Amino acid sequence: MINVLTQNGAEIARRAGREIVAVQATAKNLTKSRDCSLEGISLVPDANSIVDHPEIDVVVELIGGTDVAKQLVLRAIDNGKHVVTANKALIATHGNEIFRRANDNGVIVAYEAAVAGGIPVIKAVREGLAGNRIEWLAGIINGTGNFILTEMWDRGRAFEDVLAEAQALGYAEADPTFDVEGIDAAHKLAILAAIAFGTPLSFDDVYTEGISKITPEDIGYAAELGYRIKHLGIARRSDAGVEMRVHPTLIPERQLLANVNGVKNAVLAYGDAVGPTLYYGAGAGAGPTASAVVADLVDVVRALDVQPESRVPALGFQSASIRALPAVPMAEVETTFYLRMLAAEQPGVLAEVSSILADHHISIEAVVQKQPPPGIEQVSLIMLTHRVKEGSVNEAIARIEGLTTISGQVTRIRVEHLDAD
Amino acid sequence: MINVLTQNGAEIARRAGREIVAVQATAKNLTKSRDCSLEGISLVPDANSIVDHPEIDVVVELIGGTDVAKQLVLRAIDNGKHVVTANKALIATHGNEIFRRANDNGVIVAYEAAVAGGIPVIKAVREGLAGNRIEWLAGIINGTGNFILTEMWDRGRAFEDVLAEAQALGYAEADPTFDVEGIDAAHKLAILAAIAFGTPLSFDDVYTEGISKITPEDIGYAAELGYRIKHLGIARRSDAGVEMRVHPTLIPERQLLANVNGVKNAVLAYGDAVGPTLYYGAGAGAGPTASAVVADLVDVVRALDVQPESRVPALGFQSASIRALPAVPMAEVETTFYLRMLAAEQPGVLAEVSSILADHHISIEAVVQKQPPPGIEQVSLIMLTHRVKEGSVNEAIARIEGLTTISGQVTRIRVEHLDAD
Repeated sequence: MINVLTQNGAEIARRAGREIVAVQATAKNLTKSRDCSLEGISLVPDANSIVDHPEIDVVVELIGGTDVAKQLVLRAIDNGKHVVTANKALIATHGNEIFRRANDNGVIVAYEAAVAGGIPVIKAVREGLAGNRIEWLAGIINGTGNFILTEMWDRGRAFEDVLAEAQALGYAEADPTFDVEGIDAAHKLAILAAIAFGTPLSFDDVYTEGISKITPEDIGYAAELGYRIKHLGIARRSDAGVEMRVHPTLIPERQLLANVNGVKNAVLAYGDAVGPTLYYGAGAGAGPTASAVVADLVDVVRALDVQPESRVPALGFQSASIRALPAVPMAEVETTFYLRMLAAEQPGVLAEVSSILADHHISIEAVVQKQPPPGIEQVSLIMLTHRVKEGSVNEAIARIEGLTTISGQVTRIRVEHLDAD
Repeated sequence: MINVLTQNGAEIARRAGREIVAVQATAKNLTKSRDCSLEGISLVPDANSIVDHPEIDVVVELIGGTDVAKQLVLRAIDNGKHVVTANKALIATHGNEIFRRANDNGVIVAYEAAVAGGIPVIKAVREGLAGNRIEWLAGIINGTGNFILTEMWDRGRAFEDVLAEAQALGYAEADPTFDVEGIDAAHKLAILAAIAFGTPLSFDDVYTEGISKITPEDIGYAAELGYRIKHLGIARRSDAGVEMRVHPTLIPERQLLANVNGVKNAVLAYGDAVGPTLYYGAGAGAGPTASAVVADLVDVVRALDVQPESRVPALGFQSASIRALPAVPMAEVETTFYLRMLAAEQPGVLAEVSSILADHHISIEAVVQKQPPPGIEQVSLIMLTHRVKEGSVNEAIARIEGLTTISGQVTRIRVEHLDAD
């Protein structure tokens, strides 16, 4: 971020109308050498001295985590300082408290960098689509997960292989749980849903499923059926309330989202007036994060002398008008499904499976049956269903798994067409 | 727009913090029936009575054209009213004057709907990428042109056929010049370039070439080489200045832009910190235009009580810091080229053509030679060059067209890889 402020300082001042100057900084390891110039920046050992400093207008929090970061952010707010943060976990889990406190103190908390890195998607959805009732959004919002799925697709490699490589390359953390199990994406989705629907942040209501069980086999079958598997965060509102879910998803290969590859992110948002809009770019990394942080800084600096009630509210809706909506349980969520199972190679199995699905009013759009390799007595049976509630599919799957002709578990991956519907 | 304000009125008020109410309207034909409720709106015969009305805060201009629209917009500004407009021609050709006048009067002129319809690309580039030095942008910013090229690609149809259909469907105007000759795109590109680079609007410097000469043949050859032909507006800054150009362009088929189809628009913007970002959605139509207009209205309404110097400047840069940059002449613009020519089917022709190209320091990346249909004595010769200045290519083409072994004109289409380069 310091590099961007230094290199583009003149241009940033031309935009903001005044210079933005970093005056103090701190870090866990103050003696570590940095790839940026620290000229004019006083390095201090204690973060509190920054958030308490009387001449600092804006505090940028790039610590991560929710303990120290939360304390510092609240202390900065209480001291009347504006805050710019890239911390998705902090906003997703403590955003309601933080925004309330900021509101009480008449300061801004800006968090563009918390979702989809350098893509200005918070601004686009919160302000650019302000005329719309936003019906749903779906995004590839974790670069590591998308890198892994892209490699699996491009080269037919296994999840574990690619993960190990991603860790070696520094794309994935030593503990990859946050990325591959969808927690990071769930943080971002909770934020996107709140700004899309004008609801409080509600991270605990996000259903979260990772990509660690996706196999090259599933990716291959999906491709034969005309789909790509992407790890999506999806939020949708309906008369029943709001559904929020992060999980691997088959999407039609012609969709732009299906062609977002590598570490890139993209968010598709559907507004009633505008229809679908998509925002694409780098979801992580020093440059993209700095891009978003500095954009927030420019916004904050422009609004320094603006009365709080004239500023863009934290979630895009006036704080008094934020309203919770019921969380739709996953059993009630309706999608189509990709099902894969290992079936004994004998007559009548397909009839048995189909009849169970019919009992649960699940109609089948496509069936693919794969001959087994020599020496294996079972066939892979792949099905695409029509739209159905997840609860019905789960009940049907439990019965199918009880069949003596079916081995092991049924793989179940949700399918989304991402149309208006 | 009235429909969006009515249907989403409650949600818009939750965002803006106050109700946005349409009170007066006018139109050429006041008695025509409308597909929106006019309850509460007084229809007046004279637009001046709106721009002069003492209780109106914001005037929305959706007239189009640059005569009446300009008079009304300037009069509204002089009366201290904020203006929201969807008029790309007006902003592209009179924006400097209009923004200066708005500045003098302390009012906002918002124009999100003028570029790429419902996609909030003005906001994204002007505010969301404020930390970046924007190096270039490239966009599909005319839906009619993109619809025609998509149909030509999908079905191998000729330009004239598709245009006639588009006119019948209402996608294309009776006089399609603005769309198919690139003038509409050039208006939008001039606006995008100004907000990207902080330069005055400079529509006259946009080089403009339409799609009417693109043939299904070229689209097919491009596909064989791994490219799609799209009508792009491209703006780039370099040490030499700013280049702005609208023309058919071959782009690699794996690029997201290559997969933006039908009437959809998309803008790819490259910032030094963030890298490439892309904004996609509906570029025209009542709903998308209303989406952008209402987003502007919300911004304006939020900023009603804000001091002018704390607002986002019209071009994203403080007006005093807008600086003209030299326009780079097309002869100096460097791209790669697709060349197609009809050559006599005899030995030595390829050698002759190659030697002319070599004289002009143009190296060839790929050559395809197509056997002619029976009875035709000529072969199609297709070449992709490496990067070279347009002036050199033009000189080489003039010499190639002089060869007795080459018939007619050489087709020349620019190729862009849209990488960082």
